[in-house]
Amino acid sequence: MNDPSLLAGLDIGGSKVLAVAVDASGDDGRVRVVEQVRLTTFQGPEGVVDTALRALTALAGQLSGSNDHPASPATLFRGVGIGVPGLVDAERGAITHAVNLGVGTGGLALADRLRRRLQLPVVVENDVNAAALGAAAHLRLGRIDMAYLSIGTGLAAGIVLDGELRRGPHNAAGEIGHVPVDLSGPVCGCGQRGCLEAVASGSAIAARWPSVEYADGSQAQGPATALFAAAAAGDPKAVTIRDEVAGYLAAAIRMLALTIDVDLVVLGGGVAEVGEPLRHAVASALDQQAEGSAFLRGLDLAARLSVVPRDQPVAAVGAALLTHPGSVPLDAVLDGSRETIEDVPA
Amino acid sequence: MNDPSLLAGLDIGGSKVLAVAVDASGDDGRVRVVEQVRLTTFQGPEGVVDTALRALTALAGQLSGSNDHPASPATLFRGVGIGVPGLVDAERGAITHAVNLGVGTGGLALADRLRRRLQLPVVVENDVNAAALGAAAHLRLGRIDMAYLSIGTGLAAGIVLDGELRRGPHNAAGEIGHVPVDLSGPVCGCGQRGCLEAVASGSAIAARWPSVEYADGSQAQGPATALFAAAAAGDPKAVTIRDEVAGYLAAAIRMLALTIDVDLVVLGGGVAEVGEPLRHAVASALDQQAEGSAFLRGLDLAARLSVVPRDQPVAAVGAALLTHPGSVPLDAVLDGSRETIEDVPA
Repeated sequence: MNDPSLLAGLDIGGSKVLAVAVDASGDDGRVRVVEQVRLTTFQGPEGVVDTALRALTALAGQLSGSNDHPASPATLFRGVGIGVPGLVDAERGAITHAVNLGVGTGGLALADRLRRRLQLPVVVENDVNAAALGAAAHLRLGRIDMAYLSIGTGLAAGIVLDGELRRGPHNAAGEIGHVPVDLSGPVCGCGQRGCLEAVASGSAIAARWPSVEYADGSQAQGPATALFAAAAAGDPKAVTIRDEVAGYLAAAIRMLALTIDVDLVVLGGGVAEVGEPLRHAVASALDQQAEGSAFLRGLDLAARLSVVPRDQPVAAVGAALLTHPGSVPLDAVLDGSRETIEDVPA
Repeated sequence: MNDPSLLAGLDIGGSKVLAVAVDASGDDGRVRVVEQVRLTTFQGPEGVVDTALRALTALAGQLSGSNDHPASPATLFRGVGIGVPGLVDAERGAITHAVNLGVGTGGLALADRLRRRLQLPVVVENDVNAAALGAAAHLRLGRIDMAYLSIGTGLAAGIVLDGELRRGPHNAAGEIGHVPVDLSGPVCGCGQRGCLEAVASGSAIAARWPSVEYADGSQAQGPATALFAAAAAGDPKAVTIRDEVAGYLAAAIRMLALTIDVDLVVLGGGVAEVGEPLRHAVASALDQQAEGSAFLRGLDLAARLSVVPRDQPVAAVGAALLTHPGSVPLDAVLDGSRETIEDVPA
């Protein structure tokens, strides 16, 4: 198999890397995920380079039908896009700081390292930014102004204006997680008190509503899913926490609407696996905020809220699309994700 | 005199209109205010049309040296730009709602009305947006990302990205004044509680620190100037209010930095007449916010703060520059404003 129209996208997280092969060459305006694999992430600068190479090799193996003698990535892909959590210098393709990957202030010139090994164009982007682009493709948004609100371990927005990522001159665009909203709230990892990330992220939910764990340490379901299920079942404490979190997320959306102004806010990240009940809770909170304000009601933020469907690999796909931004139609439809090939747990 | 290189700019406020004639045709990269007049604003849709025509006629009279037989604006100006407070449909050149001008929801197709009368290109823009462009020219910012934070009767930001205004798909970009920051604060005109506008605008300051009035009802100095003078003289209540207001303005700037991300925030509006003491108070509050947060310290927001010099007609100049955006160099220097010719008070 030799299809240079394929793009490779990697979403390297703290524990797992998801690699997708994407076909955006069709005339039908669709972006197809033709293959995807998930492997364990190795930590540290060398671990991250190795993780990317292993994932690309495994992806190439799946595509070429041979894991023993996989085709070289250079014969399969037009380019490689990588999303990573943390601070990224997208122009240089370098990770400057990523605690979850064990890459400290020394940084990692990831694109340079991989380009030399792969003989392919490589781009590196913050994973939330990559996911924003992937979500925009998924929702067939075209040249819209949108914000992708990632609610996971951290909380941050990826901002797409007129179809293009806005990073900002200090790479701080969308770093809304570090706006304090509750001065009596918990101290945030950033050193401030009561930041949105400290009161409305997946970690903040986990701290208030620990999830059930099996005897082997694995989780029955994520804390957000457990919280929303308990609230739906009428647990009064769960209802309180759910509504508080939804209120903070609504505040984040109002803040995005009254600073950048976007057409649409898409909820994503681990907490978005809750799905429609999350969208509904946040939309209700937005309506409640607007109750006394004709000005806010006029903006109708609740109607401009969406949620990424479960298990859509938006960050990996967005990273792939970044490798050839001009060649991908902006109103592309992302086809439903394929079954993932997982590696054997170590 | 017949100089079609001149641009006319009007800043129509609730009580006064300031009209400037601007020369941006020089090779030296300067924008010169060659004449300016200030007249009383008449309220209501017809009043606003009349105000604009009177101001342009007076400006033409000053330029042609004859108030009795002024040259026609069409022979003097290449275009007319108008800044107004309130909601503006810049594409149509229409005011859709401006409480301070007595223009209700019926709106006013101001550009159309004036174009017919003047036979000149006319653009209409929200006054904060116009002032943002004028401030960018004044500070010779070039293709920078900046926010102009207008602190007057209301509180809002004008946002300039890469040298161009960002209005947003719902004209809500920069409407930061209606982000609540103190849930126990006073009710805002927008219906929400504790909005930035309700706790940190000029009106909010006036409510907490009324200014001295002369027997004829005129004010010795604005409330903000009076507050900062009293605080500098050691009045403990004034110090408390000043520091609270500065803290809220710092919160507004942090919010702009962590949503849009800009290189520079310029303080303007009536409260900015306080000048350097205002900048200093807000910069101190920004440093205080960042004390416990290496993340915020890294952004060094206090160092990226500026204040519009007193009596600079930035809104009128910005409106003028909007008439021929491409023709004005982005690193233009705005020459100090001329003495203003005032009309006789009614």
